[in-house]
Amino acid sequence: MDNPFLVEVSRGHIVESRHRGSVAVVDAEGGTVLTLGDVERRVFPRSAVKALQALPLVESGIADKYGLTDEEIALACASHSGEPDHARVAASMLAKAGQNETCLECGVHWPMRDEAARALAASGEQPTQLHNNCSGKHAGFICLACGLGDDPKGYVKAQHHVQQTVRSALEDLTGASHTEDVSGIDGCSIPTYAIPLPALAFGFAKFGAGVGISPGCKSASDRIRKAVARHPFMVAGTGRFDTKLMEALGERAFVKAGAEGVYCAAFPELGYGIALKADDGGARAAEAMMAALVLRFLKLDDNERGVVEDLAQPVLKNWNGLEVGRIRVTRDLAA
Amino acid sequence: MDNPFLVEVSRGHIVESRHRGSVAVVDAEGGTVLTLGDVERRVFPRSAVKALQALPLVESGIADKYGLTDEEIALACASHSGEPDHARVAASMLAKAGQNETCLECGVHWPMRDEAARALAASGEQPTQLHNNCSGKHAGFICLACGLGDDPKGYVKAQHHVQQTVRSALEDLTGASHTEDVSGIDGCSIPTYAIPLPALAFGFAKFGAGVGISPGCKSASDRIRKAVARHPFMVAGTGRFDTKLMEALGERAFVKAGAEGVYCAAFPELGYGIALKADDGGARAAEAMMAALVLRFLKLDDNERGVVEDLAQPVLKNWNGLEVGRIRVTRDLAA
Repeated sequence: MDNPFLVEVSRGHIVESRHRGSVAVVDAEGGTVLTLGDVERRVFPRSAVKALQALPLVESGIADKYGLTDEEIALACASHSGEPDHARVAASMLAKAGQNETCLECGVHWPMRDEAARALAASGEQPTQLHNNCSGKHAGFICLACGLGDDPKGYVKAQHHVQQTVRSALEDLTGASHTEDVSGIDGCSIPTYAIPLPALAFGFAKFGAGVGISPGCKSASDRIRKAVARHPFMVAGTGRFDTKLMEALGERAFVKAGAEGVYCAAFPELGYGIALKADDGGARAAEAMMAALVLRFLKLDDNERGVVEDLAQPVLKNWNGLEVGRIRVTRDLAA
Repeated sequence: MDNPFLVEVSRGHIVESRHRGSVAVVDAEGGTVLTLGDVERRVFPRSAVKALQALPLVESGIADKYGLTDEEIALACASHSGEPDHARVAASMLAKAGQNETCLECGVHWPMRDEAARALAASGEQPTQLHNNCSGKHAGFICLACGLGDDPKGYVKAQHHVQQTVRSALEDLTGASHTEDVSGIDGCSIPTYAIPLPALAFGFAKFGAGVGISPGCKSASDRIRKAVARHPFMVAGTGRFDTKLMEALGERAFVKAGAEGVYCAAFPELGYGIALKADDGGARAAEAMMAALVLRFLKLDDNERGVVEDLAQPVLKNWNGLEVGRIRVTRDLAA
């Protein structure tokens, strides 16, 4: 099955590039609200499921045991830009579990935000594991390991108790089996499991609506969504899509990007969960698709609409600030 | 017409993302060697035609009048990484025409190579127009304007004598009309004209083989190809695809990337010209496609083959250096 064109990138009067993709919108009973394209094909959710991966940390009571703040819980769901506040909060999480950045197994990279990387370089410093965009999730894993009484060492491996616990939470929520044959290694070295988009969307519908899950899981889901809504800077960073969208919408929309053009979302007031992928892995396409689905399903006031429309149809400017093109979704998606 | 899948990106045992695209390979008489996908669709060549845009500078004798070196002529064809040597050579070109960077109208951005941007920041400096990846092309335009006796001011505008001259050269070589209705504004503010891939490929076939063009144009084409083959660092930079490929193959393959997943190339020994585009604009796809076409058409020795195979099937590693996936072209392209 050929996935439909969902996003066009124009320059002058011509469509310069086009993105195809697939979308699943599911309600909390598992009913299909919308599908576009081949939604049976398995998709690696990558970082789009970080909030679900954080559930055991909160549901177990370990987040409370260590006194994790809302900022810290939001960072556990983050693909952050490596700005100073992100690194600071990750360090604080680790300190609460009696650990430091040397036990993080995510690897080191320069901050994703260029300005933050240049500022770090200008100060004569080098990046540490704390600047890795996944450091908050990994700090959460360390807290989980310590709280469970496990040695954190090797916590990124599929057979470690931490990953077993996280995998079990994902299987419970999505209803999809997470087996070795559909696994890959993520950028931060933990396993990622490819599952169909409707299963992912179903997981997020339950996460958002608190339906079809245990009271403990519902309570943890609510806590995580509220923490992210209060601190949308923590889950991404300056100028980033997820931060801007959740700054505008608060608890009305939980959205999270994953690498290779994936997005997951929950619209709690409708009980909808969403999962989508741009075939080619393009982040710009996935973002426009996500914003278009917010416009399609949520009733927005003028302020909210202004922010989301800018995200759905970004203007492309060149190095002199001239408008040279635009990204827009096709009618299939906007309808 | 649906363009075929030409590139797959795998993770674990699963194809995570896929790129479609179109390809035209044409000989110097305009005969079709290979087409894949819809090749009648117009494509903005963007920076892939910089070498053709540099022809008037050389053919007019202005490059010689100002004593431009091979390094400088190579930089006129470049989308460079903003490394110190790139900025130095751009400044030298301008000085030879009695100008400096303040007359460059390409805009300012931090060096494309992160290491170069961080080094600049660490030294307390800010980027100038010289660090713009197009500064060499623009310095060439300034030389052309000065050599023609024109005021360089406004040289990026379609109606300026420089752009008229460049446009005329592109029309002569490709045989395609470059009109307002198919124009867009490029990242560096000059006009770019969307034309079908076979016309682009035909232009590069003539550029490579020196067939079907005037003796002056042939001489200028030879000079430009030799200059780039001698200084492949100048057209791109450290670790970049074009630099690595031409370091290995020298004059056997002229290749040049354009933004939004475009590549153009000439294989002079076969008289072939190539133009391709990844539908979604993905550079990783365009690079793998270009490398696959080198493997398909050119007889390579073991050293050459080793370099090109690595470019055609790059291994994807995560932040810990673990192999997590691979990019590979499909059978349609590799055949």
